[in-house]
This record gives sequence, C-alpha cells and structure tokens, in this order.
Amino acid sequence: MDKKKESLHDTAFEILRAAQDLFYEKGYEKATTREISERVGISKAALYHHFKNKEEILFRICIRGADELIENMRQAIDRNKRSNVPLKEKIKDIMFEYATTYLKNKNFNKILLHEIEFLSPDRKRIILDKENENVHQLKNFLRELMEQGLIKKFDPTVMTFSIISALHWLYFWFKPNKNLSLGQVIDQIADMYLEGIEKK
Amino acid sequence: MDKKKESLHDTAFEILRAAQDLFYEKGYEKATTREISERVGISKAALYHHFKNKEEILFRICIRGADELIENMRQAIDRNKRSNVPLKEKIKDIMFEYATTYLKNKNFNKILLHEIEFLSPDRKRIILDKENENVHQLKNFLRELMEQGLIKKFDPTVMTFSIISALHWLYFWFKPNKNLSLGQVIDQIADMYLEGIEKK
Repeated sequence: MDKKKESLHDTAFEILRAAQDLFYEKGYEKATTREISERVGISKAALYHHFKNKEEILFRICIRGADELIENMRQAIDRNKRSNVPLKEKIKDIMFEYATTYLKNKNFNKILLHEIEFLSPDRKRIILDKENENVHQLKNFLRELMEQGLIKKFDPTVMTFSIISALHWLYFWFKPNKNLSLGQVIDQIADMYLEGIEKK
Repeated sequence: MDKKKESLHDTAFEILRAAQDLFYEKGYEKATTREISERVGISKAALYHHFKNKEEILFRICIRGADELIENMRQAIDRNKRSNVPLKEKIKDIMFEYATTYLKNKNFNKILLHEIEFLSPDRKRIILDKENENVHQLKNFLRELMEQGLIKKFDPTVMTFSIISALHWLYFWFKPNKNLSLGQVIDQIADMYLEGIEKK
C-alpha cells in the first residue's frame, strides 16, 4: 500500500472509531457528521470523501463488528475441532472467544441493538444475515457434537441461543474489576451448561 | 370506585397502552403526545390532565412493566417454595412465569432497553432499582437452594444472570408459531441447566 492510500485508510478508520464512540454516547439520531469530523480533526468535506452519509458510517460500523465476531468464532470453532483437549475445554475456549470479542466491542453491540432500525432495509438485511451466519456456525458445531454422541440431543436452536444469550448478557452485568475475572465467569457458565446445576 | 373515577382510570390506562404501542413502533423520541392522544381519541388537553408530559408517560409504562414482573416472580417463587413437586418442576414453573410475563410485555421490554435513557436520572434510578429487585429475588431463591444442598454451589450472580438471559433472549428469537411451544422451550432450557448437556 503506498503512503497516500494508507493515510486514506487510516482516516476512514478514525472516522468509524469516532462515530462509534459518538453513536454510543448520544445515539445515532442525535449525532451529526459535523461532530464526527470535529472529533477526528478533519473537515466535513473530508469526511464525505470517505462516506456518502451518516447512514453509511453506521452501516460500516455494523459490518466491521459483525465480521469480526464471525471470523473470531470461525477460528475458535476450527481450532477446537482439530484439538484433542477435553470437550469442556473446547466449549470454554469458544465461549471465551465469543465473550471477549463481544465485550471488546461493547459500544458496537449497543449500537447494533439500538440503531439497526436506522439502516435502509437492504443494509439491515445484510447485517441480520451476518448475525444469522454467526448463530449458524455455532449451531452447526453443537449439532456435530450431538451427532458424535458427545452432548445430549436438545433442540439445537434452543441450545445455541441459550448459550449465546448467557454470553451476550455479560455486557449488561459483568464488571471486569469485581471478584470474578471474565475467565472465571466463563468457566462457571461452561460448567453449569455441561454438568448441570442439580445435585444428584 | 364511582363512575367518574373509573372512567378517568380507564383513560389513563388507554393512554399508557397507546403510548406503549407508539413508542415501540417509532421510538420514544419521534413519538408525540399529539399522536398518543389521537390514538386514544381524546384531546391533547385531556392527555395532559392525566400526565404532565411525555416523559411521565414513559416512566409510568416502565413502572407498570417492572412491577408486573416483580409481582409475578414473587408469586411464582412463593408458590414453589411451598410446593412439594420435584426441583425441576419448580424451576420450570418459575422460568415459565418469567418468560410469559416478559414475552407478553414484549414492547415494554424493547422500550425499557432502548428508551430508559430518556428518563430523568431520578426516575431512571427507580426503574433500575426495580430491575435489581427482580434479579435479587431470583438470586435469593437460588442461594437458598444452594444452602439446602439441592443445587451445586456456583456464583449466585453468574447463575442468576445466565438463567435470566436465556429467558430474556427469547424475545429476540422465539416465534410462538414454530415447531416448539414456549412450554417445550422452557422444558429444554430447564433440563439443560439442571442436568447439563454433556453425555457421560
């Protein structure tokens, strides 16, 4: 990449980052492209050189966050399929990857949940399809474990969403500086799911 | 209640119901008190006879939904503490109560998640305290089961939020007209949590 292209790329990245923070702080509707460009320290014209409008910025933020989650989960599932560690370690590693990617992009997820309505129907569809892709790769992995007789046969959709929701909701209640680390929380969630909570 | 009071009460109720639908459809910010009063078929002045402003309407909607969840869960926990059915049946009944109350108020929950930012800090605090109250009564119940040796000792917060989040997320993916009924989904979630998914 030559110098000029690289700096263009950096500016686009800075715009997305500033917009993501701003949308998180005051919501998409209230945020203006003027404020975004001010945060980056560029003119409004320079911003419009990279993005057609505010909605395109929102769309790119959503694409980036969704793609990162899909890619990280794809890698986590792949490396655990190839690994010989016990099942529980595999599940923990996958859950931990999901939770860390999700929590790292905390503000992306608030945006995704709240602001997706502001995307055009076509663009909203693209983001929802990416969410589905993410759910499906986990569901397929769990279905394979069922077929291999490693886990019990539950409805794969119920199982997938139960696990995903326990991880999603961390953003709502988990504070990293409390008694439990994220790793310890994931350990407990995986233990509950794998072995059950009832004493026999 | 005399006739006049009753009809005043009904009007306030109709206003809240219309506002809840409207906030759900277009978001709190875009909705106007004019639209709310038009839906109810009253004048704007009549609306302001019941509520000081749009924020008070939002606050009352949040209070009503939160109180209903607290009360239904309190009753579900109480009746299961007194009952002699197996532990799994108790957990299922409590989960089912939570899920049905939550799904019945589907639009309330979207409002709660998205629009709580528009409440004044004092009022937001009141609603968050009610959410905490709801979490705490379930957590206390689970802690009692741990102390009685009926369930394993996990961190009560991790356990409570894991269960609640599996139920919350139903609003996102569960369609009542699919192959599985809500009761069947709750059965599976409770079985997963109580007995674990791993085959031994």
